Amino acid sequence: MTDSSSSVGLVRDERAAFVTPLTLCSGSVLAAYELVFETYGTLNADASNAILICHALSGHHHVAGRYAETDKAAGWWDNMVGPGKPIDTDRFFVVGVNNLGGCHGSTGPSSANPDTGQPWGSAFPLVTVADWVCAQARLADRLGIECWAAVIGGSLGGMQALEWSVRYPDRVRHALVIASAPKLSAQNIAFNDVARQAILTDPEFHGGDFYAHGVLPRRGLRLARMLGHITYLSDDGMGEKFGRMLRSGEYKFGYDVEFEIESYLRYQGDKFSDRFDANTYLLMTKALDYFDPAAAHAGDLAAALAPARAEFLVASFTSDWRFSPARSRETVKALIAAGKRVSYAEIESAHGHDAFLMTDPPYVALMRAYLDRVAQEAGA
Amino acid sequence: MTDSSSSVGLVRDERAAFVTPLTLCSGSVLAAYELVFETYGTLNADASNAILICHALSGHHHVAGRYAETDKAAGWWDNMVGPGKPIDTDRFFVVGVNNLGGCHGSTGPSSANPDTGQPWGSAFPLVTVADWVCAQARLADRLGIECWAAVIGGSLGGMQALEWSVRYPDRVRHALVIASAPKLSAQNIAFNDVARQAILTDPEFHGGDFYAHGVLPRRGLRLARMLGHITYLSDDGMGEKFGRMLRSGEYKFGYDVEFEIESYLRYQGDKFSDRFDANTYLLMTKALDYFDPAAAHAGDLAAALAPARAEFLVASFTSDWRFSPARSRETVKALIAAGKRVSYAEIESAHGHDAFLMTDPPYVALMRAYLDRVAQEAGA
Repeated sequence: MTDSSSSVGLVRDERAAFVTPLTLCSGSVLAAYELVFETYGTLNADASNAILICHALSGHHHVAGRYAETDKAAGWWDNMVGPGKPIDTDRFFVVGVNNLGGCHGSTGPSSANPDTGQPWGSAFPLVTVADWVCAQARLADRLGIECWAAVIGGSLGGMQALEWSVRYPDRVRHALVIASAPKLSAQNIAFNDVARQAILTDPEFHGGDFYAHGVLPRRGLRLARMLGHITYLSDDGMGEKFGRMLRSGEYKFGYDVEFEIESYLRYQGDKFSDRFDANTYLLMTKALDYFDPAAAHAGDLAAALAPARAEFLVASFTSDWRFSPARSRETVKALIAAGKRVSYAEIESAHGHDAFLMTDPPYVALMRAYLDRVAQEAGA
Repeated sequence: MTDSSSSVGLVRDERAAFVTPLTLCSGSVLAAYELVFETYGTLNADASNAILICHALSGHHHVAGRYAETDKAAGWWDNMVGPGKPIDTDRFFVVGVNNLGGCHGSTGPSSANPDTGQPWGSAFPLVTVADWVCAQARLADRLGIECWAAVIGGSLGGMQALEWSVRYPDRVRHALVIASAPKLSAQNIAFNDVARQAILTDPEFHGGDFYAHGVLPRRGLRLARMLGHITYLSDDGMGEKFGRMLRSGEYKFGYDVEFEIESYLRYQGDKFSDRFDANTYLLMTKALDYFDPAAAHAGDLAAALAPARAEFLVASFTSDWRFSPARSRETVKALIAAGKRVSYAEIESAHGHDAFLMTDPPYVALMRAYLDRVAQEAGA
């Protein structure tokens, strides 16, 4: 199922420019912006087989396939999206989009600010999950998609799927909300704030305008990513994979790498700090913190979800402690209270939060079964 | 029980200088060193009523009482140590000591290196739990204490109590190992490494020799402490105390403090970064990482604990996820397998790892009951 023969093959990204101003939740207005996206499969005649994939904190529009045969890695959800895969590109027309504020081609802090010709930097406005969904809806219009067969996302992507269901009730038939939460806990916000402080206090951050200084706040971004990784993996999973293994078999009594887990985290941090934009990281964590659809309904999540007309699949993973199964059950409980059709799966996995990106067989089977029904309903 | 009338009152610290070289686990030798300590209560005629309190990562020798009437805060365990309190200074002679490598008066990285007259800085050797226990044993000799009625510690302090029981089996009658673990997990080490990397990569750390530059690696130490605090509190406890409360009642769409939890963490980080030594923080986390008595016995903890002759009290707290109850049960299981006398208490608390410093009534009652028996055995 993950062999290359079932890949969508070579892909290319596309670009959509929007000139109708977008008023953001913050009150700021983006006069114009571009979204970079990719599509796989073919939109059917009545445009009923379209699926939107919403990405999480460090994700992007490159969901499946490769840009060149020589690409080492395929898109980030290539294991789930492709011909014959659970999100079957022989049946569905699949859209991946880089969110506004991103750093993979859509308008964001590292893009040129049309007013200055220089990178936006600190002048780029903070965006919310709702802002992303509004921007995505305009892309749907552009693609001729009136109603998604499904909007699917894990983690922060799941929040977008949930937001879609209430903001555009008539434009989503199924919302798949995976390893997500209806709002962050104090602990979630706390981890985000430590990550942000690492970046904000990096002397090379320059208040967000590091581009002009020809430097990158690598130290801060590296720490943020190292910390993030701890929350993506489960305690047990990390124990099984790394345990207390030493690189050289003995204590060195110094501060260089000693344990394998240190080596792994530092490597992940280094890699990330070279390729990800610090301002995008900051605004993504803020979008996470801000998401709280119940807030406008005096904390009543069922009331917040009342407008939805979609059918829901909510899925969680047993070892996920970033957004534990209990957080998914909050969503399920509110959906049931609001009279919605919802399926809930709590999937046994040692992969922690990252499980939503993995191929634990019960997860793949669940997605395959659910999406088969979605396809049948869509006549695909 | 926590009113000031039951305080040990005004205290002063004392200092013990040792000139017999101490060979550390790393192979380094400390030619001479000083330990700063405090005592409360009176040593009885046969020196059978002495209790050693071992401190955790950011603790020290100032366990109880005040240095001056005007001191705002008392010693860090003043709620547990004093006349009529569970560790009753009317019955016990209680000793608190700042560990080697500390930053509260004992010889450590910020002390003057006798070879240079300048702070040790990066030249100070890494120390282990076993090194601390050896140094503490010399202090016991100096104080005329052949055998402790009890060695007590929470977290990293509990590791010292465990180490005492196997390194000096005839010198410990009771070991109280609270909210501790027989070794760190990969996740524990991972959190420590992020904290260390924050300090080590702070441009003002200067490889550990920041003293000479007249600066402090405040940014790194602040991040380390913020992160630490998240692991000291429980998810639920943090939720109850801070939730998603906003300082100003609305989103500001910027990176200044918005949520109360951010304000709390940043305040804790700021306060800590002004008063704690970065090198001490680093070496304390390494002592945590290195502790693993089972390692020398092919991973068999029961074999490692076999030499112990003490009786044990192991206690954990339900909401502690830094060293969860499961970690304490590992210790208990091994002690039972090794044929030791051990009592185990899993205490209901919302205070997370920090509960060992708090006064949840079941915890206080447990300590009181257990130590009453210790006192009776000691004829105190």
